[in-house]
Amino acid sequence: MTLPSSQSANAIRMLAVDAVQKANSGHPGAPMGMADIAAVLWQNFHRHNPSNPNWVNRDRFVLSNGHGSMLQYALLHLSGYDVSIEDIKQFRQLHSKTPGHPEYGYTPGVETTTGPLGAGIANAVGMAIAEKTLAAQFNKPHFDIVDHFTYCFLGDGCLMEGISHEACSLAGTLKLGKLIAFWDDNGISIDGEVEGWFTDDTPKRFESYGWQVIRGVDGHDMAAIASAIEAAQANPEQPTLICCKTVIGFGSPNKSGSHDCHGSPLGNDEIAAVREQLNWPHPAFEIPQNVYNEWNTQAKGQDLESAWQQTFAAYSKAHPELSKEFNRRVTAKSLPSNFAEIADQYIAKCQDDMQNIATRKSSQNAITFFADHLPELMGGSADLAGSNLTLWPDAKGLQDDDAGNYVFYGVREFGMSAIMNGIALHGGFIPFGATFLMFMEYARNAVRMSALMKAQSIFVYTHDSIGQGEDGPTHQPIEQIANLRMTPNMTTWRPCDEVETAVAWSQSLLKQAGPSALIFSRQGTKAMARNEAQVADVAKGGYTLVECEQTPELILMATGSEVELAVNAAAELTAQGKQVRVVSMPSTNQFDLQDKAYRQSVLPAGVAKIAVEAAHSDFWYKYVGQDGDVLGMTTFGESAPGAVLLAHFGFTVENLVAKANALLSDI
Amino acid sequence: MTLPSSQSANAIRMLAVDAVQKANSGHPGAPMGMADIAAVLWQNFHRHNPSNPNWVNRDRFVLSNGHGSMLQYALLHLSGYDVSIEDIKQFRQLHSKTPGHPEYGYTPGVETTTGPLGAGIANAVGMAIAEKTLAAQFNKPHFDIVDHFTYCFLGDGCLMEGISHEACSLAGTLKLGKLIAFWDDNGISIDGEVEGWFTDDTPKRFESYGWQVIRGVDGHDMAAIASAIEAAQANPEQPTLICCKTVIGFGSPNKSGSHDCHGSPLGNDEIAAVREQLNWPHPAFEIPQNVYNEWNTQAKGQDLESAWQQTFAAYSKAHPELSKEFNRRVTAKSLPSNFAEIADQYIAKCQDDMQNIATRKSSQNAITFFADHLPELMGGSADLAGSNLTLWPDAKGLQDDDAGNYVFYGVREFGMSAIMNGIALHGGFIPFGATFLMFMEYARNAVRMSALMKAQSIFVYTHDSIGQGEDGPTHQPIEQIANLRMTPNMTTWRPCDEVETAVAWSQSLLKQAGPSALIFSRQGTKAMARNEAQVADVAKGGYTLVECEQTPELILMATGSEVELAVNAAAELTAQGKQVRVVSMPSTNQFDLQDKAYRQSVLPAGVAKIAVEAAHSDFWYKYVGQDGDVLGMTTFGESAPGAVLLAHFGFTVENLVAKANALLSDI
Repeated sequence: MTLPSSQSANAIRMLAVDAVQKANSGHPGAPMGMADIAAVLWQNFHRHNPSNPNWVNRDRFVLSNGHGSMLQYALLHLSGYDVSIEDIKQFRQLHSKTPGHPEYGYTPGVETTTGPLGAGIANAVGMAIAEKTLAAQFNKPHFDIVDHFTYCFLGDGCLMEGISHEACSLAGTLKLGKLIAFWDDNGISIDGEVEGWFTDDTPKRFESYGWQVIRGVDGHDMAAIASAIEAAQANPEQPTLICCKTVIGFGSPNKSGSHDCHGSPLGNDEIAAVREQLNWPHPAFEIPQNVYNEWNTQAKGQDLESAWQQTFAAYSKAHPELSKEFNRRVTAKSLPSNFAEIADQYIAKCQDDMQNIATRKSSQNAITFFADHLPELMGGSADLAGSNLTLWPDAKGLQDDDAGNYVFYGVREFGMSAIMNGIALHGGFIPFGATFLMFMEYARNAVRMSALMKAQSIFVYTHDSIGQGEDGPTHQPIEQIANLRMTPNMTTWRPCDEVETAVAWSQSLLKQAGPSALIFSRQGTKAMARNEAQVADVAKGGYTLVECEQTPELILMATGSEVELAVNAAAELTAQGKQVRVVSMPSTNQFDLQDKAYRQSVLPAGVAKIAVEAAHSDFWYKYVGQDGDVLGMTTFGESAPGAVLLAHFGFTVENLVAKANALLSDI
Repeated sequence: MTLPSSQSANAIRMLAVDAVQKANSGHPGAPMGMADIAAVLWQNFHRHNPSNPNWVNRDRFVLSNGHGSMLQYALLHLSGYDVSIEDIKQFRQLHSKTPGHPEYGYTPGVETTTGPLGAGIANAVGMAIAEKTLAAQFNKPHFDIVDHFTYCFLGDGCLMEGISHEACSLAGTLKLGKLIAFWDDNGISIDGEVEGWFTDDTPKRFESYGWQVIRGVDGHDMAAIASAIEAAQANPEQPTLICCKTVIGFGSPNKSGSHDCHGSPLGNDEIAAVREQLNWPHPAFEIPQNVYNEWNTQAKGQDLESAWQQTFAAYSKAHPELSKEFNRRVTAKSLPSNFAEIADQYIAKCQDDMQNIATRKSSQNAITFFADHLPELMGGSADLAGSNLTLWPDAKGLQDDDAGNYVFYGVREFGMSAIMNGIALHGGFIPFGATFLMFMEYARNAVRMSALMKAQSIFVYTHDSIGQGEDGPTHQPIEQIANLRMTPNMTTWRPCDEVETAVAWSQSLLKQAGPSALIFSRQGTKAMARNEAQVADVAKGGYTLVECEQTPELILMATGSEVELAVNAAAELTAQGKQVRVVSMPSTNQFDLQDKAYRQSVLPAGVAKIAVEAAHSDFWYKYVGQDGDVLGMTTFGESAPGAVLLAHFGFTVENLVAKANALLSDI
């Protein structure tokens, strides 16, 4: 094996140093420290095609210590991706291909957005799960059409974060042998030398997870790095952690080995000294042609993909149905062509059946139906399958079946959600994962990251309010739904019955460019009558469920389990001679996307409005205005049977009718 | 040592079984499995006084697997706390002393609210930190007035959660020798046998954290348990994990060892079988007197506290100043009597100085000032001291000084926040801890738990908006501030300059019954002119900062770094002949607490309003109404210099003036 020249590693260092200096912000330390590791991995092992960043069988590379983004941009530029030296000069500038942290969708070759520490390694675990499962589902003897590694760089920060525990523990259990992680063991974090706050025996910790651990690799010895990677690749049964002892800011005579080079430009004087020390006489942003030549992977990458294409062509002949399905699921990422039709049929059937069941049960029915048609569904729950109702008859856990379709994530909400994002980004699957709505909070940043990346992760959240009952306020969401609704790119649904649940599921499956949050009740809900037009309007996120005879003087809008309450209160008010419309609002996000005429037709200005939802009131003023009212929550819940709590907190027909009459008499 | 009788452990089991059955909901499995461990710990080791649950030198007990709440209630009842058998019968009923999960403040003897898994062990780490530090600050030769253990029960779920990694890793680093945790190793979680999703070598994992690990203890062998506890107590240098092999639902002939007994009532037939198997002929909720006699700890507890009181009396003579300070900080939990006065002086000085600095810098100034007067301040940051600006000249890290006042938490936001709660609950300290506002999300559930428990944790969040700049959308909060504001019991502040920052800090220190979130800018802010009345009004959360000459036709309300923008736009509009008031709203929570007359005086109905905040717009409709407007964010941010981003997203005088004119011409 021909190892990279030291100058090819130094090219990374100098690009990082100069780009950070030009931007006057950024993190030179990690790229300088990991440059040798990166050079060996990318020049000697990493199988990818710079000319087609979407080649489905490429190795995946994740920079979990995403603040070292210039490392990744340098690698992409040098390897021949569509990241020019001009792009590098635009580091951290508006709408450039080189934002402060690697952002999925901004830069060819960036597989996931990283920066929030520890999330990248969890994404990588998801990618490795996807690879292993897809291989088990599609590979045939002589046709390993899915066969790639997932590489991940991580730093001390990633290892301190709890999510690294969750994800790496599960990776060991699932024996993800093609996951190879490189620990940048430089002994430095932002506050200084980590020995004051981070004294884990990390190799021992990872051995406790069932990983292969390669200890004591000199991260500046390219031969040692190469040997370690070979040993990692040779072990198909265990993920591998390669522990690389490095010097942060390697090459900086006065700042290396110290946190001074972690997150600030080195300054022009020190950069001159780096140039001297690294024997790099070239001006900023100039890379000698011989270094470019050494790095360029375009031809090799084309060869790799061409060889794979040949294999795939043969596979297609031998296994035409499988290859068609592979193209649909992995390459085109399209739903079956009849999806909209069967979804509509299912929704219509739900409307006909009028079952009074908890929406979590409706969700299980929907999962059961859709999973029959969508082998790409990869379900899961954070140890709450029986409560979230996420299992279906054909669900098979990955721990028992490599070709399965369900992940028993264990009690790991954050890990689950970031792993789901990794599965979604890899392609070939639509992941859904469940927990109680309250414990969305444990996973909150991964949920946000799915929205930022527009990854199709479907989050299933049950036990959605004080209606949850006896478990008490630690388990009763109040402010969580608003948080999800205010997350850009996220579509949040809180359906009121089986029909709305089926629509929420079908819309989430159709929405490929972004995540959805599906919020379900623990307790039973009443099936609502609807005509065909109303059934069609559910997908608009808000619609008139019960209309009054004349012009409405009051609109009650509600979601989820409180829709029945609104309908019953409206009936009482109607009996009192009032003109009351009931609007069901399963998704405010979706409603906000409708045109103004439609929104005005459902919620006309000048009509008194009351919102009813067993969640934080403040969210609803956007829809009811300051003259309206909200029957919601402004305190935490309590521990008692759900029906007792709903009454205690005023979710009764009597109270809602009284509120309505008070509001109407105020006007 | 006389070990407990088997019947005294069975008393726990039967109380749990019968209470869960009566409530028709709850978790019998863990109490039945851990009853023997609990009996040995509480009868032979745990030093506490049931007649005074607030005795400051009691051992602390935390049930991290809080769903096993009946274990704790049984222990409290049997030991002689004010938890009667009638209270036990009210398990999981509204406003009872025995809610579904242990709730701090509801039940004498419950030290912290648990249920969200893994949080309890992190609280326990906080308590152990508080004990160790308080001891170092106050103990004197012959006077170990602070000298107690912190015991924690935890289950597989706690161990799977990432927070257990963060907290236990730090506990090892800080050598918390008086922290003793018991792992309920029953091999079962909700989804079934954990071997499919949890295969960690947990003993090895905890050894990697520097803990003493006592392996292979039979959790039903009382002598073995006692020996393990003795070994744990004998090691002052390391926290100890006692690995207890147990049978979940021990005593249930048909359901023990299975997840069937985890989270549901056993049913009357099985309960009859349990009675037979455990040789427990007594009816539900009847405990034989001899068992009560064996358990009752009232006399022993009084003796323990009396002995301590004698020691403390002698200490008070020998060290009168220290004992006075101990009484203030630990017993009375009161601020120095002159606090309000010095705070007001400091605020006035800030108003005089008119410094144009980032509010994170203002925060550091406030910390420096207040820390001089409040030795109970226990600062910290999740590895961002230099960015959050949380260090002050006299800050001393606990890793270097047992009597220190600063925790270098490492990159552990969730662990930090739950540890802070434990420190606050222990008493003797007011903890504050910092991270970037975005990474509040990693810690979100612990932040909520502080609010639920009304613990005085002060959360410092810097880099509070797109103004953060180049790090990009992964680091730029959008929906986070609304989430904090909607958290019941939380007071969120986003001050605009040094005066408002000083008020926010002083209010947070004064607010003993609950947490505060202090949100600060990375970038500079402009000091605002105020008269004395305005300075006094800052504490009201919202006030008129700039008044117009006549009745206002428009109100611009803003927070934090956007206040200057509102002031500048108002000046421009005034020059155009408009009557514009500027309202600064550093804390909507605090503003909402003011009486209606005050709120109306600041934000009169019928006047057009625009809110300006570089955070999610939806929150503000509560204050501007549907006829108002919001200059806010509805998308994620971007990576670019902060000033570029603010302009890009419309936070300019020009745009705000245009919005104002559009709104005024609409009316």
